[in-house]
Amino acid sequence: MEETFVPFRGIKNDLQGRFMCYKQDWIGGFNAGFRILAPTTYIFFASAIPVISFGEQLERDTDGVLTAVQTLASTALCGLIHSVLGGQPLLILGVAEPTVIMYTFMFNFAKSRPDLGSSLFLAWSAWVCLWTAAFLFLLAILGACSIINRFTRIAGELFGLLIAMLFMQEAIRGLINEFNVPERANPASAEFQPSWRFGNGMFALVLSFGLLLTALRSRKARSWRYGSGWLRSFIADYGVPLMVLLWTAVSYIPAGSVPKGIPRRLSSPNPWSPGAYENWTVIKDMLDVPIMYIIGAFIPATMIAVLYYFDHSVASQLAQQKEFNLRKPPSFHYDLLLLGFMVILCGLIGIPPSNGVIPQSPMHTKSLATLKHQILRNQLVATARSCITKKSSMGQLYESIKEAYQQMQTPLVHQESSRGLKELKESTIRLTSSMESMNAAIDESVFDVEKEINDILPIEVKEQRVSNLLQSLMVGGCIAAMPFLKTIPTSVLCGYFAFMAIENLPGNQFWERILLIFTAPSKRYKVLEESHTTYIETVPFTRIAAFTIFQTVYLIVCFGITWIPIAGVLFPLMIMLLVPVRQYILPKFFKTAHLQDLDAAEYEEVPATPFNQATEGRLGQDSFLPR
Amino acid sequence: MEETFVPFRGIKNDLQGRFMCYKQDWIGGFNAGFRILAPTTYIFFASAIPVISFGEQLERDTDGVLTAVQTLASTALCGLIHSVLGGQPLLILGVAEPTVIMYTFMFNFAKSRPDLGSSLFLAWSAWVCLWTAAFLFLLAILGACSIINRFTRIAGELFGLLIAMLFMQEAIRGLINEFNVPERANPASAEFQPSWRFGNGMFALVLSFGLLLTALRSRKARSWRYGSGWLRSFIADYGVPLMVLLWTAVSYIPAGSVPKGIPRRLSSPNPWSPGAYENWTVIKDMLDVPIMYIIGAFIPATMIAVLYYFDHSVASQLAQQKEFNLRKPPSFHYDLLLLGFMVILCGLIGIPPSNGVIPQSPMHTKSLATLKHQILRNQLVATARSCITKKSSMGQLYESIKEAYQQMQTPLVHQESSRGLKELKESTIRLTSSMESMNAAIDESVFDVEKEINDILPIEVKEQRVSNLLQSLMVGGCIAAMPFLKTIPTSVLCGYFAFMAIENLPGNQFWERILLIFTAPSKRYKVLEESHTTYIETVPFTRIAAFTIFQTVYLIVCFGITWIPIAGVLFPLMIMLLVPVRQYILPKFFKTAHLQDLDAAEYEEVPATPFNQATEGRLGQDSFLPR
Repeated sequence: MEETFVPFRGIKNDLQGRFMCYKQDWIGGFNAGFRILAPTTYIFFASAIPVISFGEQLERDTDGVLTAVQTLASTALCGLIHSVLGGQPLLILGVAEPTVIMYTFMFNFAKSRPDLGSSLFLAWSAWVCLWTAAFLFLLAILGACSIINRFTRIAGELFGLLIAMLFMQEAIRGLINEFNVPERANPASAEFQPSWRFGNGMFALVLSFGLLLTALRSRKARSWRYGSGWLRSFIADYGVPLMVLLWTAVSYIPAGSVPKGIPRRLSSPNPWSPGAYENWTVIKDMLDVPIMYIIGAFIPATMIAVLYYFDHSVASQLAQQKEFNLRKPPSFHYDLLLLGFMVILCGLIGIPPSNGVIPQSPMHTKSLATLKHQILRNQLVATARSCITKKSSMGQLYESIKEAYQQMQTPLVHQESSRGLKELKESTIRLTSSMESMNAAIDESVFDVEKEINDILPIEVKEQRVSNLLQSLMVGGCIAAMPFLKTIPTSVLCGYFAFMAIENLPGNQFWERILLIFTAPSKRYKVLEESHTTYIETVPFTRIAAFTIFQTVYLIVCFGITWIPIAGVLFPLMIMLLVPVRQYILPKFFKTAHLQDLDAAEYEEVPATPFNQATEGRLGQDSFLPR
Repeated sequence: MEETFVPFRGIKNDLQGRFMCYKQDWIGGFNAGFRILAPTTYIFFASAIPVISFGEQLERDTDGVLTAVQTLASTALCGLIHSVLGGQPLLILGVAEPTVIMYTFMFNFAKSRPDLGSSLFLAWSAWVCLWTAAFLFLLAILGACSIINRFTRIAGELFGLLIAMLFMQEAIRGLINEFNVPERANPASAEFQPSWRFGNGMFALVLSFGLLLTALRSRKARSWRYGSGWLRSFIADYGVPLMVLLWTAVSYIPAGSVPKGIPRRLSSPNPWSPGAYENWTVIKDMLDVPIMYIIGAFIPATMIAVLYYFDHSVASQLAQQKEFNLRKPPSFHYDLLLLGFMVILCGLIGIPPSNGVIPQSPMHTKSLATLKHQILRNQLVATARSCITKKSSMGQLYESIKEAYQQMQTPLVHQESSRGLKELKESTIRLTSSMESMNAAIDESVFDVEKEINDILPIEVKEQRVSNLLQSLMVGGCIAAMPFLKTIPTSVLCGYFAFMAIENLPGNQFWERILLIFTAPSKRYKVLEESHTTYIETVPFTRIAAFTIFQTVYLIVCFGITWIPIAGVLFPLMIMLLVPVRQYILPKFFKTAHLQDLDAAEYEEVPATPFNQATEGRLGQDSFLPR
């Protein structure tokens, strides 16, 4: 992304870039066939479950003015618009926790003012949305997202880990609540007696840990040793929804012998309950808001705009990290502009607005990488098998695989389309050199086609719009399916939150460096045996540790800030502060070359030579392996 | 073992063989120093926990005549005698489930007879013990244990898996009971109200699964990546007791808010309670038993004798399986003779007798193999490190390691002491050939000493008497520590039973073949990549499957038999029936060579040539790998 602050330039660039692949975005998605349902279902659950839970929270905090129906509606509507008109279709939109906190704060403020009251709360928040949108337009037009360029891995991954901590905190808090009498409940009813509360809490532990452990297991089904291939694929693709179903079913086992409220389940009005749609007509009331409040609305709007600008852009960036080898261009400015319009729309129909969410957006990209991998692999394995049947040599096999791979590449004018192929060629050469002869006929008893092709395939992502569109439609379908959703125990949701937190740790280099610090020196060779990032070989261990400890302290400070009432939602500002810290302070403590390996910044020039030499052979390791 | 039915020959052979290593049995144990405490503690828990649980069961079923105090006393006393005077010190003795079932049956019989009554029950069972001992003497003198020779892997491993199933069944049954009102309890008390019973059951699920999962994890601590080496060793060695402690502590967390009986804990009278020692004077009452019952006692005695003959010998055999590479001779006949004396002793002091137990005995051998491995490895790593500091070549390194290894061998006259060494030499040669030059100096950055020595060390067992003696003393100590034991929740015991069942599955070839059947054809290469047994390469997959299915059906029949009241304890007869089945029927369905690989029998001659050829190279695999 070009760093430009010329007005409208960013938006124009984004539109140009994405327009070129717009048609392919749809064709590619539909070409994947029914397989697209795997990432769709996966992301639908990750998207819908927190939104329902936030809706429940909002219902309690706004005396029922806003409920899960409104949060689901906003997520579905914005997701739909973004998947069709948005720039980066990998970005997932949803009502997020900071929005809930801001809306709760705004509700309490409105309720406390006699000239607003809870009846004008939605009208006033429509004004807040208008102000927010105005700020977002300004930011998009002036090219504020160019700063995202200066967002390095350190900021993105710290944010990712912080979100994981917040989800984990939510899970733990939810589990503790299962032992207590919920707010606004009648403490006299049978299920809130100490004995039943104890049973409910213990049952919640069973359900949530059951979901967490089985869901984590199911995601690894592809590498299981047992069961047929399609069963393992099916479990890996749909294991999480299946486990939610399974543990919901388990929660009904003791139904005959326990009071009705055990275990506690999701509560939400059905969309056809009277009054569930009062928010739709909010536009009528907007002019009833006193002028002073219309102007004053810009104060919360500033906070929300900063928040959305940050969350939306970082979610988009985390969905497009370098290691995914994306082929299509990003679209930060245009997406922020579009977000402004969506905020207006949500404000006018009285529902809380959505923005780009973490960890769902990177989860989306990861699941699409798995999909692409499956598609490529199946095609190449078929090609290789047919070569083996024809008793081709290794050389011929490589040629055929190359051809098949090239045919499957997305034709994009502005991108070198041979990037993945080069990697493929290198890997195949490595592979063939390990064989006895390039020209000997291949015997499948010694050449495990599936395994070898699995190993040589580069990471690629099925970039398209269909999965995002479908998941938005499914979220919308949730509103109608509310009676079914209400059978899910709240403790299963807690387990799911913990699952989301843990599922996103692998691949986060920050997290992996934390683990590295705790790795016994005698076991560090294991890290080198696996596929690992460059820094492990080029940066001395003490420097890795120092960098990681700095980042951890920063993370804890950010986590502490989220505990501050109201102002806590602005914790992203702390993460924004990392940009100057990274650019001006960190280079004083770390060598540029080390920093570049730990946290590549595009604005830094790297001295190329010394470390290329070091990485040759296994020399680089003696900085790392214990003596 | 020589197959001899000449009276006394077997006992004489056993005594001669074990006498020669008797001194070394003690010296070797004490030489291991404090490290011997790791297998000791491990086996102490495996020994004491079921015995306490069986004692509890016995207390319920005999109206409190026999309790955990008596079962612990028997286990400690017999273990003590066996570890000092017994033949095979790897064998662990304890009061087992069949003994409990027989004693319950005998109690109910005595109670139903007006001329015996529960007051003469112990006196009558003393007579049963005398009869049992007479049968055992007869079996030992006549050389009945020679038949153990004809016990092949199929019988031993089927028995092992059956015991695992029974332990698992016990665990599940125990967990279900946590939801119900226990027998003989007052259903009116608070903790047995439906609401608290539900909470108790759910808490039991949390505690038992918590113990099971953490205990299984802790056993693998040595291969963890995190934490320092000694911490990992400590957790691997003492993890199971630590986890019992941990989850017992967890069970006290809700103590303030729940009635006293939640969670349910072990119940047993303290040894200093009045009446706990009534059994000691049973010898006085023996002549009060009517003569008809004294004679009739031979009927239950036959059953018990058959049971003990079988269990004791098979437990001993499973503790001495071929793959452990034991150096010291077995002692089946003499141990059975000694068991006879111990049964008399137990009978006369009115406690239920102990016999050789599964899975504790093989667990004991396995934990001693780990200990020996640690000792050898530490010594050899130190030797290798000192060579590397001196910049020795690979050839010199091997010589030093060889010397160190030889010094640590047990000097045994009648055994070729170079067996393990040959294996070591082969492995080192394999290792050195993978290095670039035999004479280049070794750099530890490329040569991971600990890992390589780990890989080349053959399996060896620290055969000695100290661990068995110490664990018996600790079991005896349990009687005094009863107030502490009573803090353990019964659900933690359920988890421990499940742990014992699962912990003993790996290494059982029968179990591994069951897994192999469920292994996806495309993943079978993984089995070959790991260390695997010969049959996987030499026997066609369909034959492996047929053999395993036969064994599984047989297992299910045996399991069904255990459900028959009283007669069910005789299920070992079904396993004995496997001897003729294996010898006369199986050879009609399987090729001798295949049978020999799947289930080596010493009485079978194997045609040597065709399969040696086949295993060379990877040719043998095409029978196994999918095409």
